[in-house]
Amino acid sequence: MNAKVSQLRIILDWGTTSFRALLVNGTGKVIDRIETEEGIQSVRGDFLGVLQRAITPWREKHGIVPIYAAGMIGSRNGWIEMPYVPAPADAGALAAQVKTMQLPDGGTITFIPGLTDPSAYPFPDVMRGEETQLVGFGLNEDMTVVLPGTHAKWARIAGGQIAAFQTLVTGEIFGTLSQHSFLSKVARKPETPDWEAFDKAVAMVRDDARPAGLLTRLFAVRTGWLSGALSPAEMTDYLSGIVVASEFREAKSLGWYVDGARIAVVGDDDLVEVYSRVAKAFGLILAPAPDDAAVRGCLAIAEAVESVRRSA
Amino acid sequence: MNAKVSQLRIILDWGTTSFRALLVNGTGKVIDRIETEEGIQSVRGDFLGVLQRAITPWREKHGIVPIYAAGMIGSRNGWIEMPYVPAPADAGALAAQVKTMQLPDGGTITFIPGLTDPSAYPFPDVMRGEETQLVGFGLNEDMTVVLPGTHAKWARIAGGQIAAFQTLVTGEIFGTLSQHSFLSKVARKPETPDWEAFDKAVAMVRDDARPAGLLTRLFAVRTGWLSGALSPAEMTDYLSGIVVASEFREAKSLGWYVDGARIAVVGDDDLVEVYSRVAKAFGLILAPAPDDAAVRGCLAIAEAVESVRRSA
Repeated sequence: MNAKVSQLRIILDWGTTSFRALLVNGTGKVIDRIETEEGIQSVRGDFLGVLQRAITPWREKHGIVPIYAAGMIGSRNGWIEMPYVPAPADAGALAAQVKTMQLPDGGTITFIPGLTDPSAYPFPDVMRGEETQLVGFGLNEDMTVVLPGTHAKWARIAGGQIAAFQTLVTGEIFGTLSQHSFLSKVARKPETPDWEAFDKAVAMVRDDARPAGLLTRLFAVRTGWLSGALSPAEMTDYLSGIVVASEFREAKSLGWYVDGARIAVVGDDDLVEVYSRVAKAFGLILAPAPDDAAVRGCLAIAEAVESVRRSA
Repeated sequence: MNAKVSQLRIILDWGTTSFRALLVNGTGKVIDRIETEEGIQSVRGDFLGVLQRAITPWREKHGIVPIYAAGMIGSRNGWIEMPYVPAPADAGALAAQVKTMQLPDGGTITFIPGLTDPSAYPFPDVMRGEETQLVGFGLNEDMTVVLPGTHAKWARIAGGQIAAFQTLVTGEIFGTLSQHSFLSKVARKPETPDWEAFDKAVAMVRDDARPAGLLTRLFAVRTGWLSGALSPAEMTDYLSGIVVASEFREAKSLGWYVDGARIAVVGDDDLVEVYSRVAKAFGLILAPAPDDAAVRGCLAIAEAVESVRRSA
């Protein structure tokens, strides 16, 4: 076993509602994983205690392993508030702003900073965690990359850097409307996605010749039901199709892609399938993307950090 | 007292969450009113019982008085499902489609139909109740009229008729996001509207040179807070300003008004102030509008119905 393979690290994905730790080797292979519901909002500030209890079995077996964390654990409501590195930025720029904290057991935890786009209107835009996924996806080819989520990000990779990005709150709109709105009051959510209803909404938005927006389009969930064109079982996925397709139209109007462009969809959950489907419906070409971009990005930044420290 | 003044009618405003009855004379003066929380969703189908118990004091004092009802009580979840009259339509067209039901006490209740715009994309648009407000506002002058609400309506009056209309789900977006979203999670709602924060958001949306939409603009609530530009107390009204101003931009892009146009805002609650404020910020001229348009419209339709019946 060469040195790279045997180099273990722990990668933390510690979000608002869940705690996830991955034990990975130097090639990014996941050796073991721990998942609990001890999200940031439930641990009452005892970050150290929760972390140490969780990784005790690994410490007993492997000794002290350096820990890296990206995302919301480094936010205002997290363990420490990390700065935002201004775009354009690459792995080196992110590595230069990490903060490493000594732990009582002699180990360390290193927090990766977020990214800001100071050119955004009206306030600087922000991401936490997606910058690490973008590094893991790779910054070699100039391309637009979409990262779906509660607050989806559209990012532009150019010249080996994350050049610019913008947030679209698509997931939040879908989540709140599907759960709390009159619009979808009579909706019955199917157990598996109703892709036919979803595709119908995507085509409706794509083929709309008017310069309409979300406020007008959303009412089609209700008028479709009232007119008998949509059944209660179709409404949730029709809503989803409207919202995601509207995101693609809005992103296009803002210059994030042109007709027939090659883009990537990066993430690790069902939303990648949803967004890839819409991208294809809009005639875009999908670049391949790994489903472990977060792990790859964390390792790339860790290596940049450790390389600087070795040469210092 | 002439015959018109002494002609009493009961106007019902029976919505999803509340019951309201007005006793009005022939000039539209409100003589008495009853309000309870017995909305459509709480009466378990006993519409007749709830109505009769509520108006017993009036019947004892004034005898049998004809009852008129517009809006959601005539919807799929209400007492009876009334048809939608297709636009273009005027008071006469609405009066021609009313349904009158005999009540056990010898009185009558007359339901006013809704209105549909069959030209809407992708499904026919619908309104229930707003058509009566539009009649009460008056159809003499060609003009665009905005009716704020959970599902706001933009209507075009032309040639003495309601010519066309469109629904924008602005109130629903604001309501669900202000109560349930991460966006406004740290917001502290002030007791009185923070007009300064509201106006700041309206100007931000109005002055945005980009062809942005709601999905990108909404994130400014969060980035404004993160960047220190917005305090938690300002966030709710900033959100409100973004949503309503985005409605005005979307309505303009769809041709509902041109720069400097004369429009009216019709309704009977605080939203009229909110929308009038945005209209002025967008350089529009406000036509005067009565705050009892619903009562006036109901009476105009009632008179059309009764006039036809007298001459039959």
